[in-house]
Amino acid sequence: MLQNRGRNKEKEIYQVAAHLFNKHGFGSTSIRQICSTIGIRESSLYHYIRNKEDLLFNICESSMLQSLKGVEPIRMSNAPSVAKLRKLIETHIVTIAQNANEHSTMLKELRSLGPKNQRKIIKLRDQYEGICRQIIQECLTAKVPQKAKIVSLALLGMMNWLIHWYSPEGNMKSEEIAQVFEDLFIGGIYQRSYPRDKRKRI
Amino acid sequence: MLQNRGRNKEKEIYQVAAHLFNKHGFGSTSIRQICSTIGIRESSLYHYIRNKEDLLFNICESSMLQSLKGVEPIRMSNAPSVAKLRKLIETHIVTIAQNANEHSTMLKELRSLGPKNQRKIIKLRDQYEGICRQIIQECLTAKVPQKAKIVSLALLGMMNWLIHWYSPEGNMKSEEIAQVFEDLFIGGIYQRSYPRDKRKRI
Repeated sequence: MLQNRGRNKEKEIYQVAAHLFNKHGFGSTSIRQICSTIGIRESSLYHYIRNKEDLLFNICESSMLQSLKGVEPIRMSNAPSVAKLRKLIETHIVTIAQNANEHSTMLKELRSLGPKNQRKIIKLRDQYEGICRQIIQECLTAKVPQKAKIVSLALLGMMNWLIHWYSPEGNMKSEEIAQVFEDLFIGGIYQRSYPRDKRKRI
Repeated sequence: MLQNRGRNKEKEIYQVAAHLFNKHGFGSTSIRQICSTIGIRESSLYHYIRNKEDLLFNICESSMLQSLKGVEPIRMSNAPSVAKLRKLIETHIVTIAQNANEHSTMLKELRSLGPKNQRKIIKLRDQYEGICRQIIQECLTAKVPQKAKIVSLALLGMMNWLIHWYSPEGNMKSEEIAQVFEDLFIGGIYQRSYPRDKRKRI
């Protein structure tokens, strides 16, 4: 019972911290602010965390582990490569939408971690990006690694930018947004031809 | 001559501030740090700016005005709509790449501005997004405003994410990246059909 209460409090601390980091930035959020939002003393907070960077690191790590957990079964699947890509897009977008503050913090505040912690998160991020690139590479007709890299970054940008505009109160559910993105991106990869004059430049 | 030196100093202040804001975040960058990087006294700095927020506001405003200046002739052009979209993508990417620190700061630190300044920048940003949406809407075969909105946000995300990975020392020039993005995005918009099984889900 007491243990449960402790775990709930810890969860609350991380949720509040992610919310404040996302809203005001890591550098502009103080431990004092976090405590007063939750309604606990600073001394109690240090029962759960060592310092502010610790808090940020755990948020970033949790965000990346969650993302990796979502994408791992897709990587392992024997489904057709485009079905895998669709699933990847859907999973990524729904994951961000469900835990927007945590993922936003990871995406915006990596620079605020010390070098050692930063390296740990970048390693997880590289692992995730590697899986995306691999799934995309399977879909590309011309297997040019450089192109797979840029195309992956295009997709990641398209999806991650959600942190700047997605709202659960918006007109579209995250699954519907994912559908538009899937069609757009997969249509782009499988472009065959479009009218010649569409390549004309101004 | 003296006026020129003043203008150069002002330019340097903004460049250094944008670099530090981008690298460490607005909240973690002090006026002291900016001064010591440039090698001037704090009292001299206040000859050019009123406070740190002033600095951020001017960086954000300059970024947005530059972007709007780039896109305005495209909006006014009588070229075919897809040629306009290609030009928009190229201009956006090259603009970000040329002034990465300034545009990154605008994209990351809007939240650090006070409400009044934030509103001013958001007004400019909405103006820019409106132009993008208009150009995209012209290209869409089905003129559904909701779709144009999501598709615009997909494109803006794809392009703006550059701030997290573009490096002038990288393998690809910004114009080459733009070319990949143009083909991908326009291919996505003009998708006609792709093999049926590609819509299958897992």
